[in-house]
Amino acid sequence: MSSEPPADDHRRLVIAGSGIAGLSAAIYAARSNNEPLVLEGDEPGGQLTLTTDVENYPGFPEGISGPDLINEMKTQAEKFGTDIENGVLDDVTVKGEGADRQFRITLTDDTVYTADAVIAASGASARTLGIPGEDELMGWGLSTCATCDGAFFRDEKIVVVGGGDAAMEEAHFLTKFASTVYIVHRREEFRAEDVWIERVMEKVDAGEIEIMRNTEVTELHGTQADGIDHVTMVSNPEGHPTEKLGDPDTEEFEFDAGAVFYAIGHTPNTDYLEGIGVDTDDEGYLITESGRGGGQTKTGVEGLFGAGDVVDFHYQQAATAAGMGVQAALDADDYLDELDRKQAAAARDAGAAAAESDD
Amino acid sequence: MSSEPPADDHRRLVIAGSGIAGLSAAIYAARSNNEPLVLEGDEPGGQLTLTTDVENYPGFPEGISGPDLINEMKTQAEKFGTDIENGVLDDVTVKGEGADRQFRITLTDDTVYTADAVIAASGASARTLGIPGEDELMGWGLSTCATCDGAFFRDEKIVVVGGGDAAMEEAHFLTKFASTVYIVHRREEFRAEDVWIERVMEKVDAGEIEIMRNTEVTELHGTQADGIDHVTMVSNPEGHPTEKLGDPDTEEFEFDAGAVFYAIGHTPNTDYLEGIGVDTDDEGYLITESGRGGGQTKTGVEGLFGAGDVVDFHYQQAATAAGMGVQAALDADDYLDELDRKQAAAARDAGAAAAESDD
Repeated sequence: MSSEPPADDHRRLVIAGSGIAGLSAAIYAARSNNEPLVLEGDEPGGQLTLTTDVENYPGFPEGISGPDLINEMKTQAEKFGTDIENGVLDDVTVKGEGADRQFRITLTDDTVYTADAVIAASGASARTLGIPGEDELMGWGLSTCATCDGAFFRDEKIVVVGGGDAAMEEAHFLTKFASTVYIVHRREEFRAEDVWIERVMEKVDAGEIEIMRNTEVTELHGTQADGIDHVTMVSNPEGHPTEKLGDPDTEEFEFDAGAVFYAIGHTPNTDYLEGIGVDTDDEGYLITESGRGGGQTKTGVEGLFGAGDVVDFHYQQAATAAGMGVQAALDADDYLDELDRKQAAAARDAGAAAAESDD
Repeated sequence: MSSEPPADDHRRLVIAGSGIAGLSAAIYAARSNNEPLVLEGDEPGGQLTLTTDVENYPGFPEGISGPDLINEMKTQAEKFGTDIENGVLDDVTVKGEGADRQFRITLTDDTVYTADAVIAASGASARTLGIPGEDELMGWGLSTCATCDGAFFRDEKIVVVGGGDAAMEEAHFLTKFASTVYIVHRREEFRAEDVWIERVMEKVDAGEIEIMRNTEVTELHGTQADGIDHVTMVSNPEGHPTEKLGDPDTEEFEFDAGAVFYAIGHTPNTDYLEGIGVDTDDEGYLITESGRGGGQTKTGVEGLFGAGDVVDFHYQQAATAAGMGVQAALDADDYLDELDRKQAAAARDAGAAAAESDD
């Protein structure tokens, strides 16, 4: 006998995460009558809500704001019967095989759901450098979201750390507020899309952005009362200076700045899956079956599917997350159909056994 | 020396196909300054243009018509610098390695392009049964597109062949015109989404649709002048009757019908790639690298990428095609960046050799 308390509710399908992948999965799952429950997580709407203007999601030639695109998808998912609830997953376990297989999902507020299938679409969270001053100053001059916090730093020198699309976009956006934006990138080359690099270069020509290549920030100095005062940096003409601290070409220097924005990638959100034994790669991204044909979003745990930035460490676009969300909903539907058949067969067997014992 | 005539134009990136996958690739490729040329193929806009109402493409809660969604994507692709041209690919070859590698693309009108990279997003075309009467009556009572041709058959008995989403959608749509729609499906179970099955069942309850399970059409009878008059069918209670023609439970019968619509899947469009030695599966779908991380849309031919229904034989949704198109554009961009570096290095080497020979 189990000593576990009863669940607050049973759901056919629970979707962890309310970003593009989770909502795209919900649209399809609801249309397949799997009555999905979307648990929003601690970043409702996911990474895209931090994007001012999405220009490359196919279908919107005039662009659409991240929050608007998310809201459209929420409306669409709810229209077909999705429930979207506040809730942060703390733990997921699974018991039983065949017709008896069931997931048990515990939220951080101790609400418990059981579910026949789960789609992990919990995304990834902004990465940090792990340098001195970071913990104290996060939210007090240090930020991972220019759209959220940029306006607090009018006429300040702002440092943006990173070399990808996100860094270019954040730097470009922050020129609205900053006296100058400094893009600090540990290598010579940027990973960003050309269109972003060009926009940044226009701002460089206009004197609004300066680029500091082959440079890394190693310490943040300031107080919560007064915010960031200055930062310590190192540079080396060959790049990756923190890996070459003993090199005579590596220089350390102090740099005045009123704010620092990190745009250096993300860590997948998989803590709640630690107990269930699902495979992840070295960086914590969920490993799914991938390959060709159906079942690409299956994890090694039967009935658990993965989609979006919690799986995809490379493309990480709204359109690719939407595509994977749709795949996960279709894969989960196949699994749930099969589960229905197993449960119907088990019920018939039980009925036959009961009829026999009545004889 | 090559005896080939010179090309009419050289392009950095040619995209074969103007459906969701091709246009999504074009949006990203244009933003990466790869100046894509999209060749529309013989079904401009692809399969989605045949869909009246797309309810499940994430981002459009009120739905959007297939042609409208395609037009929005065309506008978006052109806005960032995509050229879209009429043209059907006849043959693609590739020559050279490293900095010298180049594709040569011949269209059916003998226009020739060279290109540094190619994305095959040429989709799939409607499949036929290969039964007597088919060739003569295609377009004269037999159709693969209800939205295109439904209105020609007012107050007729219309047969729809198939059991997936497309068959349900076509049957549902055709009730506008037909006296009765007959869905003829070779198995007992439908593959379609539940939402589609329910809509069809409502029409069954209303007497507008009848379902003929475990039944197949084996011959079409009629003339081009008068269209279809009747069809021959076989049925067997265990399904797949044409595989069981000798079975005593298999019945053959004639059935009056004024039109027949096929909705039985698609064949990938890869004829133009026959000479290039790219791998396909038994049904002709392009084999891409898939797997995890970058390069999922690479084919075995370096510089040739695949996306959408020409690759995906399973999910085949607008959102999954868009996701793959985006992946292909990003993979092609990585390839083109690397090609640029090889060409720059080759130019430097040539310059150094020239300088040396000047000494």
